Amino acid sequence: MATDTVLPTPTGSVPPTVDVPALTALLGGRYAEVRRRVRDQLVAHAQVLVDAEEMTRAEFRDRVRDVVVEMAGTGQTGMGFPTDYGGGGDIGASLAAFETLALGDLSVLVKVGVQFGLFGGAVLQLGTERHHEKYLADIVSGRLMGCFAMTETGHGSNVQALGTVATYDLATQEFVVTSTRSDAWKDYIGNAAAHGEMAVVFAQLVVGGESKGVHALLVPIRVDGEPAPGVRIEDDGLKMGLNGVDNGRLWFDGVRVPREALLNRFADVTPEGLYVSDIDNPDKRFFTMLGTLVQGRVCVGGAGINASKVAITIATKYALRRRQFEATDDTEEELLLDYGLHQRRLFPLLARTYALHFAQEVVAAQVHDIFSGTLQPGADPDLARRELESRAAGTKALGTWHATRTIQECREACGGAGYLAENRFAALKADTDVFTTFEGDNHVLLQLVAKGLLTAYSSEFEEMDQFDMVRFVAGLAVETVIEKTSVHKLFERLKDVLPGGPDGWDQEAGLLDPDYQLAMYRFREEHMISGVARRLKRGIDQGMNPATVFSRVQDHVIGAARAHMERLVLEAFVGKVRAMPDGDNKVALGLLCDLHALSGIESDRAWFMEHGRLTSTRSKAISREIGDLCRRVRPLADDLVDGLGVPVAMLRSPELVG
Amino acid sequence: MATDTVLPTPTGSVPPTVDVPALTALLGGRYAEVRRRVRDQLVAHAQVLVDAEEMTRAEFRDRVRDVVVEMAGTGQTGMGFPTDYGGGGDIGASLAAFETLALGDLSVLVKVGVQFGLFGGAVLQLGTERHHEKYLADIVSGRLMGCFAMTETGHGSNVQALGTVATYDLATQEFVVTSTRSDAWKDYIGNAAAHGEMAVVFAQLVVGGESKGVHALLVPIRVDGEPAPGVRIEDDGLKMGLNGVDNGRLWFDGVRVPREALLNRFADVTPEGLYVSDIDNPDKRFFTMLGTLVQGRVCVGGAGINASKVAITIATKYALRRRQFEATDDTEEELLLDYGLHQRRLFPLLARTYALHFAQEVVAAQVHDIFSGTLQPGADPDLARRELESRAAGTKALGTWHATRTIQECREACGGAGYLAENRFAALKADTDVFTTFEGDNHVLLQLVAKGLLTAYSSEFEEMDQFDMVRFVAGLAVETVIEKTSVHKLFERLKDVLPGGPDGWDQEAGLLDPDYQLAMYRFREEHMISGVARRLKRGIDQGMNPATVFSRVQDHVIGAARAHMERLVLEAFVGKVRAMPDGDNKVALGLLCDLHALSGIESDRAWFMEHGRLTSTRSKAISREIGDLCRRVRPLADDLVDGLGVPVAMLRSPELVG
Repeated sequence: MATDTVLPTPTGSVPPTVDVPALTALLGGRYAEVRRRVRDQLVAHAQVLVDAEEMTRAEFRDRVRDVVVEMAGTGQTGMGFPTDYGGGGDIGASLAAFETLALGDLSVLVKVGVQFGLFGGAVLQLGTERHHEKYLADIVSGRLMGCFAMTETGHGSNVQALGTVATYDLATQEFVVTSTRSDAWKDYIGNAAAHGEMAVVFAQLVVGGESKGVHALLVPIRVDGEPAPGVRIEDDGLKMGLNGVDNGRLWFDGVRVPREALLNRFADVTPEGLYVSDIDNPDKRFFTMLGTLVQGRVCVGGAGINASKVAITIATKYALRRRQFEATDDTEEELLLDYGLHQRRLFPLLARTYALHFAQEVVAAQVHDIFSGTLQPGADPDLARRELESRAAGTKALGTWHATRTIQECREACGGAGYLAENRFAALKADTDVFTTFEGDNHVLLQLVAKGLLTAYSSEFEEMDQFDMVRFVAGLAVETVIEKTSVHKLFERLKDVLPGGPDGWDQEAGLLDPDYQLAMYRFREEHMISGVARRLKRGIDQGMNPATVFSRVQDHVIGAARAHMERLVLEAFVGKVRAMPDGDNKVALGLLCDLHALSGIESDRAWFMEHGRLTSTRSKAISREIGDLCRRVRPLADDLVDGLGVPVAMLRSPELVG
Repeated sequence: MATDTVLPTPTGSVPPTVDVPALTALLGGRYAEVRRRVRDQLVAHAQVLVDAEEMTRAEFRDRVRDVVVEMAGTGQTGMGFPTDYGGGGDIGASLAAFETLALGDLSVLVKVGVQFGLFGGAVLQLGTERHHEKYLADIVSGRLMGCFAMTETGHGSNVQALGTVATYDLATQEFVVTSTRSDAWKDYIGNAAAHGEMAVVFAQLVVGGESKGVHALLVPIRVDGEPAPGVRIEDDGLKMGLNGVDNGRLWFDGVRVPREALLNRFADVTPEGLYVSDIDNPDKRFFTMLGTLVQGRVCVGGAGINASKVAITIATKYALRRRQFEATDDTEEELLLDYGLHQRRLFPLLARTYALHFAQEVVAAQVHDIFSGTLQPGADPDLARRELESRAAGTKALGTWHATRTIQECREACGGAGYLAENRFAALKADTDVFTTFEGDNHVLLQLVAKGLLTAYSSEFEEMDQFDMVRFVAGLAVETVIEKTSVHKLFERLKDVLPGGPDGWDQEAGLLDPDYQLAMYRFREEHMISGVARRLKRGIDQGMNPATVFSRVQDHVIGAARAHMERLVLEAFVGKVRAMPDGDNKVALGLLCDLHALSGIESDRAWFMEHGRLTSTRSKAISREIGDLCRRVRPLADDLVDGLGVPVAMLRSPELVG
C-alpha cells in the first residue's frame, strides 16, 4: 500500500485500533442518547439541506418553520423547559440537543435557538408564573412563535443605551412602547419578518417620569399575520446565510400593552405606579437579568464546534479518496492525506475540534448545575454564575472562530469541488459566518473574559465598563491581581512536580508530558494577566486617561483572555483523556490531545521565546514532534472523524466522500 | 474631538495631508485612464449588484452575459487582442482593465475571464491564423461565447493525465473526441451550462495509434442552443458564489471535428496523418502550450487584490462612523477605529493591499513585456518566461489568500451588519472564495514557485514533477542552489551597507530603515531555500524515497516559496515609495510600507528568533512600533482607502458607509 511506503510508523509500533462506537459514546457523554435521537431527527429531515438550495426564500422560511414545529412535537427542542409546560426539565439535555442540531441545516438550528432559547428562554427566565401559565406551553409546542428584540442599530453592544422606551401610563395601567430615536430600531430580530406573533422587547422603563433602566416586556407584534397597530416591521432582506430564518426590523410607535406584560421576575410596577425590585442597584439588576440569558452564548459556541465536525469529516474523507498531482510510482498517485502539508492543515483542526467539544461539555455542565440548582454544596452560587458568564463568553468566541477557520481550511482542502453547493461548504460557510459576531461580538466577549480575570470575578465586575476596569486594576498591586487568579495556584503546583522543578521545568520535562503542556499554558496565562495589569497601572500612573490606556493595551487584554480560555480548553481535554480507561481509544485520543497542546504552543512560540520559556532548539523540536504526531494520526484519521458521529446524510458531498 | 484625546500623534508632528487623486493616479500607473474608464462602466452597470440578489439563477446568468456583451462593445474587455480583430493591442491595458472589474460584481469579472481570457486567450495563443481569422472577431465582440475545457474530475492538478482523447481518423481527416473514463468528464467549465457554443477542449491526441500527449482543439458544443451531437452537458448547479457564471460538465462521445480544429501553433497533424512539431520533447511542448496561458493566473491574483480593496474600504469607513460599547465621556462613545485592536485588525491589511497592488503591477508589466516582445535587450526570453510563470503563480497565491483573509476580517469588523447581503460582504466572500483554488490551487502554485527557486529556473524545470525536483536538488551542493538564486546577491550587498555591517546589521539598523526590512526578508528567503535543499539532500542520502522526502519537507518547501514571494512584494512596495517625489503622499505611503514590512516580520517573528536574527527585545520593539505606526495611520485612514479608488456605487452598504 502506498501509504505504508510513505508513512512508516515512526516508532515502528502498531497503531491503535479505534473503537468508533465507543468514541462516539465518549463524546456523547451523559447525553449520548439525546444526541442520538437528534441525529436521527436530522436524518429524517435531511431533505431540508436540499430545499435550502432549491426553494425561494419565502418558501424556505416556511419550510424551516414547519421543520422546527415538527421537531418541537418530538420534545427535542423543549428539553430545557419545565415538564409542567411540556418541556423535558433537563437543561443539560437541551444544550446537548441544540448543539447536535448544528450537524444539520443551520437555519433550523438558529430558528430553534430564536424560538426556544431566546424568546422562550426570556419568558421562562425573566417572567413569572403569570407569563409561564399563559404562554409557555404554546411556546414549547411552537404554536406561539416569538422574537427576542434586544439589539438595536446604532449602538452595537451597548445594550444599556438602547433607545426603545416603555412608559407606564398610570391612568390605563398600561405601558406605552415607542422607538424614540430614528437610529434606534430593533434589528436582525429572528422570527420578526414573517412568523413571530409576539416579542420580548427590551426597553428603557419609565415610571412616574423616571427612567428605571432596561427591562423586558411582552409585546404582540402581529395579529392575524399583519403587523399589530403601532408596530412597523421591515424585512432584513437577503443575508449571507441563514436565509431560512426571517430576520427583520421592528419599530414601535405608542404601542400599548397591559401592566402585566412586564416580565417581572426581577422588578415590577404596581398598579399604582410604584417601581419595586429586590435588587437595589440598577446596574446589578440589569446584569442579573442579562445573566439569566447566558445559555444563548453557550448554545452558539456549541453550534460552532459541531458545525466544524461536519467540515473536518468531509475534508478528511475527501483526502482519503482523492489522489493528487504526483505519483510515487507509475501506476498510482498519492492520496492527498499522505502529504505532510495536508496532514498539517487538517489534523490540528481535528484535534482542536475534539478539544473544544470537551471544553464545551464542561461549560454546558456548569450551566446545568447552576440553573438546576445542583451546584456542589458550599459553592458560592453568585461567584459560580459570574465565572460561568465569563467561561461561556470565552468558549463561544473560541468555538465560533474555530468554525470559521476550520470550515474555510476544509473547503480549500477540497479544491474546486468544495465550491459546489451540494458539498455542504457553501452553506456551512455562509450560515456560520455570523456566529463570530452574534450573541456578542467575539472580541467584546474576550474583553468580558479579561475583565473577569483581572477583577477576580468581583461582585461588581459585571457593572464595570472597560474604563472602570482600567481604574479598578490600576488601583491594585499586580501581585494581588495575580494571586487572586485560579491559574496562579495551579501553575505553582505543577512547577514543583515537573522534572527540573520550579527553575528548569520548561527545559527538562518531555514534550509529550501533559503536565509540561499544561504548565506552558498556565505560565502564559499568568504572565499575560500580570502584563496587562502592569500596563494598565503604568498608563494610569503616567496620567493617560482610561480610554487611551485601554486602547493601547487592548490587544494584550484580548491576548490574556485567549490564553485563559486556551488553558481551560486544554485542561478539559487532558482531564477527559486521563479519565479514560486504558486502551486503544485512550492512546488515540492521547495523540490528538498532544497534537492539540503542541500546536497551541507552536502557534504562539514567538511569545514563549520572547518570555524565556522556549529555546529555539526546543521550539524546533516541537515543530518536528507535531510532524511525527500527524504521521501517527494518519492511519487513525478515518476512524477519528467517524467518531465525531456526523450522520452520512449530513455530509452530502456524494462526489467527495461517497 | 474625541480622537485627539485618545490618539495624540506620537511624535507630536503634524500628520501628512494625503492628496487622494494623486494617490489614485499613482496606483493607476501607466493605465490610470484605462482603469478610470472601467470604473465608469462599473458604475453604469451598478444595478447588477442588486440583480445578483433578486434574480433567479437563470435570469442572473443571462443578465451577466448581457452585461459582458455590452462591455465588450466598449472595447474594454478585448484590449489584449490584436487590433485586426477588434482588440486593443495592449496586453498591459487588458490586465489593468480586468483587475479593475473586480471592484464590481464578480460573476461579470469571471465571465469576462472565461470568455476573453481563457477561451479567447487559448484561441489566440494556441491557434494560428486559420483560427484567428475565423473566430477572433466574433470572440472579441462576444458574438461567439466559448469554454475553456481543461479541468477534469478525478485528477485535480495533473493535467497531463487527463482522460479525454482526440483520435485522428485518417479516412475522414477528422479528430474524434471522446471522454474515455467514467471519472474523466470536464468539470467546473464556465460558459458550459448555458451560453457556450464552442469549447477549447484539452485532450490526449492520438495519431496513427500513438499518443502524442495533451493538445487543444476547438469543438462545437451547442447548436441552436441544444447540445451538439455526441456532447452531453450537465449543469454544475448552485455554487457558493459566482452564480452568474454558468459552470457545467462536458462529456464527449465520438464527437467529430475537422483536422483544422486542432489549435496548431505548437504542433500539427498533416492531412496524411503525420504529427509535426518544432518542439521535440513532448513535455516541453506541453508546458510551452500551458505557459502561454499564464495571463489567467495573473488576472485572478489581480482580481483578489482588487476585491480586497472593496472590503477594506467598507470596513474602514464603517469604523469611522460606528461608535462602540464604551464612552470616553458621558456624551460620546468612541469611534471603532480609535480602538487599538481595531486598528491592528484593519491597518496591516490595508498596508498589504497596497503592497500587493504594487507587486501585481510588476508582474503585469512582465506579462506585457514578454507577450508584446518588449523585453529589455539582452534578456533571455525563455528564462524570463519561466521566471514570470513562477512569479505569476506566487502572486496569485498571495493575492487570493489576501482576499479571503481581508474580506473575512472586514466582515467581522462590521459586526452583524456585515452579514446583510446589501453590504457587499456576502457576495465578496462567496464569490472570491474559489479564487484560492481555481486557476491552480494555491499550495500547488507555491510548490511551483519553490521548484523554480530550487532549480534556478533551469530549462527543464517545468517538466519536473515534485519528485524529479527532489532528485535534482539532492544532486546539487546546497551552496550551488543558493548561489544561483537572485536573493543571494541582493542579500550580500545589503548586509554590507547597513549599520553594523555583515555581522550586526540585524542589531544596529533602525526598524524603519527599508534596507533593514529588506535584509530581514532576504535573509529569511535565502535561509529557507538552503534549509529545504539541505533537508531534501539529507532525506535522499538516508535512502528515503522521493515521495517520503517530499511529504516530510513539504511545509518547508511552501515556506520557502512564501518567503520568496513576500520578499518580491516588499521590494515592489519599497521600490514604489522610493521612486515617489518627496511630499506628503510619500510620507503617508512610507508609513504603510513600514507597517507592511514590520507586520510581516512580526507574524513570522518566531522563525527569526529561532534563526538568530531577532532578539526577544527587538521582537517586542517591533510589536510596539507597529502599534505606533497604526496610531499614525489612523488620521490618514479615510484618505488612504479613498486613494484605492473604489467607486462609492461599488461599496453599496448604505447603513455602513453612507
